[in-house]
Amino acid sequence: MPPVSCRVKGVFVAKNALGASPAVILSVENDTCLPIYIGLWEAMSIHSALNNEIPPRPLTHDLFVEFLDRFGISLKALIIDSVEDGVYYANMILEQDHHELTIDCRPSDGIAIGIRCQAGIMVDEEVILQSAVNASELPDLVDISSYLAG
Amino acid sequence: MPPVSCRVKGVFVAKNALGASPAVILSVENDTCLPIYIGLWEAMSIHSALNNEIPPRPLTHDLFVEFLDRFGISLKALIIDSVEDGVYYANMILEQDHHELTIDCRPSDGIAIGIRCQAGIMVDEEVILQSAVNASELPDLVDISSYLAG
Repeated sequence: MPPVSCRVKGVFVAKNALGASPAVILSVENDTCLPIYIGLWEAMSIHSALNNEIPPRPLTHDLFVEFLDRFGISLKALIIDSVEDGVYYANMILEQDHHELTIDCRPSDGIAIGIRCQAGIMVDEEVILQSAVNASELPDLVDISSYLAG
Repeated sequence: MPPVSCRVKGVFVAKNALGASPAVILSVENDTCLPIYIGLWEAMSIHSALNNEIPPRPLTHDLFVEFLDRFGISLKALIIDSVEDGVYYANMILEQDHHELTIDCRPSDGIAIGIRCQAGIMVDEEVILQSAVNASELPDLVDISSYLAG
């Protein structure tokens, strides 16, 4: 099944029985969302990119993008293509001199880099069928910036 | 002045009046060390590389190295070339098809990637003169693994 384009709704902290976990929420279509639990550091980097923040020194994902730029490599798309035991898998589709390469990555890295490059972020339809939820079914979410502030 | 080759002694948590800060310690020669304060996440990544850990999914720096490898790019060296107000600046010297490029980076990213690529890590002599200390002058250091363990 073909991948479906999606939008990064934001990074949040999802409250659950064990405490709180950072998550990036992808908005697929209408009220369909795909929440992906990620690391706090990766969440902060995605948050920084969504807010067009320019840190005083390049974060690791900023360095990555500078790197792509300097070597004339473009990120064509990020495709989140499978999920197993709650772990999501993704591939970055990259191109240099009309030569295409696919590199396996964690969705959090792919999204952090993808937003910075304005690359398309896609999710395989199979993954959506398996894991997407209606926005109303999402757990209690707190915007990560207010979480970090206090 | 030419850069001097150094060895990554390890990542530690340095106790100080304000609490504790992660630091990477570079061993320059004899008992001369250069402590560089870095982020906790970056410290954990350097620690993972020093211990040849293979995480279940690639960390961002592992992804970076996979990336270099797949595009036939080699990291020739990391040069830490200046320090200003306690902030260290570094450059990665990269090569693809005999074409050399220099990219500005934080030393923590450069070291995390450099160890994984077995690239030389160097420090400008000027920086050593300005900031290196004798090992006996280092603050109280705790190995980061024991710190992480509790």
